[in-house]
Amino acid sequence: MERSSKEIIQENRDYTLFSWSVQSTANPIHMKSAKGVWFWDGDGNKWLDFSSQLININVGHQHPKVLEAIKRQVDELCFAGPSFATEPRGVLGKKLAEVTGLAKSFYTLGGAEANENAMKIARLYTGRNKIITRYRSYHGATMGSMTASGDPRRWPVEPGVPGIVRVFDPYCYRCPFGKTPDSCSRECVSHIEEVIQMEGPHTIAAIMVEGITGSNGLLVPPDDYYPKLRALCDKYGILLIDDEVMSGFGRTGKWLATQHYGIKPDIVTSAKGLTSGYLPLGAVIVSDKIAEWLETHMLWGGLTYSGHPLSCAAAVANLSVYEEEHLFENVEQQGAYLASRLEAMKRKYACVGDVRYKGLFSVLELVRDKATKEPLAPFNGTSPEMAKLAAHLKSKHIYAFLRFNWAFVCPPLVINQEELKYGLDAYEEGLALVDEMLGVAKAAAD
Amino acid sequence: MERSSKEIIQENRDYTLFSWSVQSTANPIHMKSAKGVWFWDGDGNKWLDFSSQLININVGHQHPKVLEAIKRQVDELCFAGPSFATEPRGVLGKKLAEVTGLAKSFYTLGGAEANENAMKIARLYTGRNKIITRYRSYHGATMGSMTASGDPRRWPVEPGVPGIVRVFDPYCYRCPFGKTPDSCSRECVSHIEEVIQMEGPHTIAAIMVEGITGSNGLLVPPDDYYPKLRALCDKYGILLIDDEVMSGFGRTGKWLATQHYGIKPDIVTSAKGLTSGYLPLGAVIVSDKIAEWLETHMLWGGLTYSGHPLSCAAAVANLSVYEEEHLFENVEQQGAYLASRLEAMKRKYACVGDVRYKGLFSVLELVRDKATKEPLAPFNGTSPEMAKLAAHLKSKHIYAFLRFNWAFVCPPLVINQEELKYGLDAYEEGLALVDEMLGVAKAAAD
Repeated sequence: MERSSKEIIQENRDYTLFSWSVQSTANPIHMKSAKGVWFWDGDGNKWLDFSSQLININVGHQHPKVLEAIKRQVDELCFAGPSFATEPRGVLGKKLAEVTGLAKSFYTLGGAEANENAMKIARLYTGRNKIITRYRSYHGATMGSMTASGDPRRWPVEPGVPGIVRVFDPYCYRCPFGKTPDSCSRECVSHIEEVIQMEGPHTIAAIMVEGITGSNGLLVPPDDYYPKLRALCDKYGILLIDDEVMSGFGRTGKWLATQHYGIKPDIVTSAKGLTSGYLPLGAVIVSDKIAEWLETHMLWGGLTYSGHPLSCAAAVANLSVYEEEHLFENVEQQGAYLASRLEAMKRKYACVGDVRYKGLFSVLELVRDKATKEPLAPFNGTSPEMAKLAAHLKSKHIYAFLRFNWAFVCPPLVINQEELKYGLDAYEEGLALVDEMLGVAKAAAD
Repeated sequence: MERSSKEIIQENRDYTLFSWSVQSTANPIHMKSAKGVWFWDGDGNKWLDFSSQLININVGHQHPKVLEAIKRQVDELCFAGPSFATEPRGVLGKKLAEVTGLAKSFYTLGGAEANENAMKIARLYTGRNKIITRYRSYHGATMGSMTASGDPRRWPVEPGVPGIVRVFDPYCYRCPFGKTPDSCSRECVSHIEEVIQMEGPHTIAAIMVEGITGSNGLLVPPDDYYPKLRALCDKYGILLIDDEVMSGFGRTGKWLATQHYGIKPDIVTSAKGLTSGYLPLGAVIVSDKIAEWLETHMLWGGLTYSGHPLSCAAAVANLSVYEEEHLFENVEQQGAYLASRLEAMKRKYACVGDVRYKGLFSVLELVRDKATKEPLAPFNGTSPEMAKLAAHLKSKHIYAFLRFNWAFVCPPLVINQEELKYGLDAYEEGLALVDEMLGVAKAAAD
């Protein structure tokens, strides 16, 4: 006899803990089945997955080619230890070298461990200890990755690992240097050189940045940001670690977000879109120079499930889907439509202060007032207006990622225009409700 | 056309990095297929897996019930984000509560992340920062878990996370206090109270220990070690975190190694035997008190793949195999045979200084001289004799885990006596070769 959704939810609540939650407030949806950009809850409601779960299920839910590949590998060989060679492990490594232009992959289970190992490798390779990261960043929740993050989620677990130095972000809408993109001198890069000078260039192993900052505001840098940052790294022999966990593997229409800017990092980290989440996998992909160095030096890192055959097979199939189904072309096409809709929203709604996008990676930054740019919710907080927007989207069964004063739009890369329109129309209804609340508040204040 | 093993190995070497290795010395075996306690390499050699890969594949390779369960879940639902309820997530949580006697599970991807989160939860719950761990321990390779480890693999990445205080181990064969089990006063526990006093009891969140220390020597504690340690924790309001990643889930014939000693930890961490490695999964299982506290306090931890439906389904099937096939009874039965063989080896071979075992978790500690106990290889090193033993086992296609002066015997829990005998006979041949080398050396010295 099939168990009810109510029972299943109760069992989940009674016996399991939910991430980043006060458990009594966790209100999980029972996901019963899923297909493409849609999933169904236990009450039969059909939801549009407008955030690709946690911006990871890039090929959409239950893609038949990935399912088939996993099942084939299950029958062939589920597990081999990290010191073994297996076919999917090698095939994936070769593919990752091809698409990133780098040399060798070290496999982890997710983005946090990938960033832990990237920092470790950078420290071993350079013999230097410090890592420069950015304030508005998230690199994972293990101690090394959490300390590297600027995200407020690090606050409760500080002090973290020594040697992290944080710098400012290319957040043009709220430039920390009080500039505008047209008139600035890219202080978002030049101030890093000041930091390097004061910290001592010979003490800095790497600068680690998200290709495009994700959950901390989706910050698309000016076009010359990366060339300048790359030049700065080269000047001081500092490695550039490019965290593409969220922004990579098709999310912006390229394998890596940094490929939009014509530069090559020394180390790339990946997870999420690498397997679209069908199985846990992360990767640290290193340059020729680092790979060569590791030929004769110890890699002081490892884990039981490094190179897990099932995870590697899922990744290989997932990357094939990107190519065979020309998903990056779809990202470009739907991304153009998405961009036009977002720009129209910015013109139409008082509460939309800024919109930022690259491919199907996008956000609306919401404000109380376009002139003052006062955020619709405080940093690290929420507000009745953001709650209203969230409630509206939920009522329309749009699964959306909202955080602070940001409303993200990051659907699976297989989305078509009709589906995208359906979701964006619901966003517009929600924005109208917010504008109404702000109007009422303004009228009351007048 | 099928690719040759040579090509596959070359591709793995050209494009992927191997854990804890100088890459040019990595010499991977191509695992082509596997079944039960056996696997086959690309040249058609049949290997006995005498270390369950990395002491994880407890139900043996390619168990049909686990394969079936994974494929069923693949068709049903591969992925749901960590905020969703899914059936396998809840079912597994309930089962883990039942077998551990604890309350709720937080899911990670492996042991390192489980220990990271266990320490995080202990710090949040107690409001204290320090964690006491043991020198001869391994808790994982992410920064928090690596710092918590005493293992020399932490050396190259120090300094780590502040707040770790290390104490000595119940290593009776080489008691750090110069005692013997019969005449000591359990200084391995009492010295921890001295440390607690000097560190300040109010600053210590938890004592974290492996249920039975694994890769750092397989140290089986005296029977009253855990009752005394539990009492010490209770006296000072310090949590006991029991890392059962390696020693748990049937390895010693019980769900948790600590269940042999009649105590209950506050937090248990698991991985490896939880899924037998078929899919990556770790768990942090917390007591009623901690679960209750988390109802109204934020759990500052999370990851994209927490509660991965495929991993949870694999774990549920794997735990069913333990029960349906009465594997813990087999562990007891085969463990008794293993113990008798190990004790006989200790009597027979000059190089066997000590043998330690619990169920199918066992080690031979090898020495140059039984009287002086001089190790057959130095700490964190190897020797010609250890290399000889390794080469012999390899030549017989016994896949064995050797480290420093320790030779582990940790086969899958499905092993039968004939298979166990086959492997142990090969160990004996190797030990005879070592004795021969030592005899020659001794003769030369005389």
